[in-house]
Amino acid sequence: MERVKPRTLSGFMELLPQRQVQMERMMEILRESYGLYGFTPLDTPIIESAEVLLAKGGGETEKQIYRFMKGDSDLALRFDLTVPLAKYVAANYSNLAFPFKRFQIGKVYRGERSQRGRFREFYQADIDVIGDSSLDIVNEAEIPSIIYRTFTQFGLKNFVIRVNNRKILNGFYDMLGLSDRSGDIMRTVDKLDKIGAEKVGLLLHDELDLSQDNVGDIVEFIAIKGGNTEVLEKLEEYRGKNALFDMGLDELTTVAKYLEAFGVPEDHFQIDLTIARGLDYYTGTVYETTLTDHPEIGSVCSGGRYDNLAEYYTDKKLPGVGISIGLTRLFYVLGEQGLLNDDMVTSPADVLVIPMVEDLTYPIAAATALREAGVRTQLYTEPKKVKQKFTYADKLGIPYAVIIGEDEAAAGTVSVKDLQTGEQQAMPPDVAARNIAAAIEERKHIPVIREK
Amino acid sequence: MERVKPRTLSGFMELLPQRQVQMERMMEILRESYGLYGFTPLDTPIIESAEVLLAKGGGETEKQIYRFMKGDSDLALRFDLTVPLAKYVAANYSNLAFPFKRFQIGKVYRGERSQRGRFREFYQADIDVIGDSSLDIVNEAEIPSIIYRTFTQFGLKNFVIRVNNRKILNGFYDMLGLSDRSGDIMRTVDKLDKIGAEKVGLLLHDELDLSQDNVGDIVEFIAIKGGNTEVLEKLEEYRGKNALFDMGLDELTTVAKYLEAFGVPEDHFQIDLTIARGLDYYTGTVYETTLTDHPEIGSVCSGGRYDNLAEYYTDKKLPGVGISIGLTRLFYVLGEQGLLNDDMVTSPADVLVIPMVEDLTYPIAAATALREAGVRTQLYTEPKKVKQKFTYADKLGIPYAVIIGEDEAAAGTVSVKDLQTGEQQAMPPDVAARNIAAAIEERKHIPVIREK
Repeated sequence: MERVKPRTLSGFMELLPQRQVQMERMMEILRESYGLYGFTPLDTPIIESAEVLLAKGGGETEKQIYRFMKGDSDLALRFDLTVPLAKYVAANYSNLAFPFKRFQIGKVYRGERSQRGRFREFYQADIDVIGDSSLDIVNEAEIPSIIYRTFTQFGLKNFVIRVNNRKILNGFYDMLGLSDRSGDIMRTVDKLDKIGAEKVGLLLHDELDLSQDNVGDIVEFIAIKGGNTEVLEKLEEYRGKNALFDMGLDELTTVAKYLEAFGVPEDHFQIDLTIARGLDYYTGTVYETTLTDHPEIGSVCSGGRYDNLAEYYTDKKLPGVGISIGLTRLFYVLGEQGLLNDDMVTSPADVLVIPMVEDLTYPIAAATALREAGVRTQLYTEPKKVKQKFTYADKLGIPYAVIIGEDEAAAGTVSVKDLQTGEQQAMPPDVAARNIAAAIEERKHIPVIREK
Repeated sequence: MERVKPRTLSGFMELLPQRQVQMERMMEILRESYGLYGFTPLDTPIIESAEVLLAKGGGETEKQIYRFMKGDSDLALRFDLTVPLAKYVAANYSNLAFPFKRFQIGKVYRGERSQRGRFREFYQADIDVIGDSSLDIVNEAEIPSIIYRTFTQFGLKNFVIRVNNRKILNGFYDMLGLSDRSGDIMRTVDKLDKIGAEKVGLLLHDELDLSQDNVGDIVEFIAIKGGNTEVLEKLEEYRGKNALFDMGLDELTTVAKYLEAFGVPEDHFQIDLTIARGLDYYTGTVYETTLTDHPEIGSVCSGGRYDNLAEYYTDKKLPGVGISIGLTRLFYVLGEQGLLNDDMVTSPADVLVIPMVEDLTYPIAAATALREAGVRTQLYTEPKKVKQKFTYADKLGIPYAVIIGEDEAAAGTVSVKDLQTGEQQAMPPDVAARNIAAAIEERKHIPVIREK
């Protein structure tokens, strides 16, 4: 028979079992954590009508999109979870209660040029709160607390959620009479981390042709740094000059004020006036999240406030705030950095039941008892040598073996062997089930990420 | 602005929040249940190279496939989870321990003609055990126990896992000298439920041109019915005439023998000699699962034993046994039949925190305490009338409100209102958290399916 090489497309993540279990654990934490804040799960199709998906028009996105005909239908694969959410909310408006809080963890597709660490198929894990006509600012303070909780549950320690407010930026540029240039300016200021303040100043002057005064004001503004209280105090000095700025400052002050009550420690939250987010549609609070030991990775979780989620589908005004974790990329980076915790339980089973008797009725019943107690159990019945059976358990990292020979079967016991210590003890199946269930319960709390 | 109608393609399931929660619950049960038997989760790309995906060639499947070019790449969307598994096992053979037990719950794509209840994008929930060169028969007995447990956890009561063995069928037709006709015969016999034994006999004679003797033998064979012991006894009468038949009978006897130890009650398991499964690659035990009150739906969970999973990719012999739940279709049917249990918790939160004070620090801290206790909590801060806030909770089915006015804030308490009974009581936030956590714990066990 002619054979085809079994390959996976480049840019598509496909994990070995141990890694997959770690990925699943992260998804489980996401579902749990998002659920704890009252977000409801959503699942939308991966394929949509191209007309619907590209209602906004695409620019860069449109070039990357997977689009194809099936019969007479012009179809496309979703490239994010926001457009499908907009479609969903517009289509189901009358069936939803607002604020509508949903999370979605799903694959999205972008046919980017293949390069290391860039994916064409990747998971996003999104939360959004959608208001009907209006949406209270407190939602914008809650978002960082959700991300803080989620990341902490992952086991991450060294991360900072950086926050800014687009109204402050737009208001500030308006003060300088530069409203129509604000997009260009923000794109230049965005390079601050990479090239430094001096070069940003030069670019603003040389390339954007701003006056020396303007450049000075901008460089002074983006130089505002320090603790959150300190930054807010410095921003107060600009108050009273521009209504939009003042509104933004009020919002940012409110967001910062409530963070402690939301359980976010100050050192995980930082007001950063250089953050703007590329997307045009953010209108208030914006977020980026960086791993402090790995700034080179950039933001692993970003989002913000927008005023109009679904204007391409409905005349309802639907403001919202949301944030998105690029899960596949984050997982890839964690693996690269050696941060995935291989001490967590990644074995497919907690127990390998090894029968050494002819009639398997009793070993099978023992396996059933273990499962009834919530112990993940594999029954090994292949006709291999005993040593190979233990090698199998070892290869999969299964922590316990339950061995059943003629003696155990006659006595109505099983021999429980701790495969790490080598200790072995005979006991009735129900006692074995209870003991192992208690032991593995402890191991469930080992975090998926191990960071110093 | 010109607007696009926000529509979802026909043949694609997109659920409202309450239904989605029910679907998620079923997936959670599947992950839990499959995990309990030592299966490891797998996730493979939805897009594969068309060459890889269609290595086997397709027939009917190939016509339905979503296939398209992206740049120079000939791509296709997976149409099942078995071909990607074959690819995965062949590609990662040296990194896996065998028997390799994996489960996968994922979307697959078939561009079928759109009709009610048929989906173009649908979830399959598969388990497979793959052996290296050989695989013990006990795995074939374990599969029905996994399905029994899963369905029972769903809340289903009236279902039967029907089992047969292809070796018995092939051996029987070999006895009659009809080996080369067995495919045609099985397709005809498959109509038994619909048209009855007499008509099957006529078809066998008229269309397949079988002798009167052969037709008589076949009709007599497929008429074997009764309890499992009874059927096996009748089959014993055929023993000794054909080696393949005898092997199949041994296998079926073993499978039936161990079921009780695996925890499957006899009335949920039925040997049925008319089951053959269309797919050519099954070689031993085959399964179908029917909802006894809804036979018209056909099998909701099918599979079987195969000898060669990945022959198109590798010369390794990889026998296996697997079963697949057509989850989207099952869910759709359950909804149609009114079997989805709307008494289960489908609200996005257990508590709605309603602040009636200016400074939200205290209500936010109360919400944080509730979440710390594992209570899913929404904080409602929109400036609406009190009545509208309760309407919101009601619309979402949130069972408790935590109300915080000036009195509560001053006293360091919260007022917990049971929204079903209307009872309201003040208590400290940590007591509220404990009480509500205990109350919702009980509600978590309400099954997703309610069947009489």
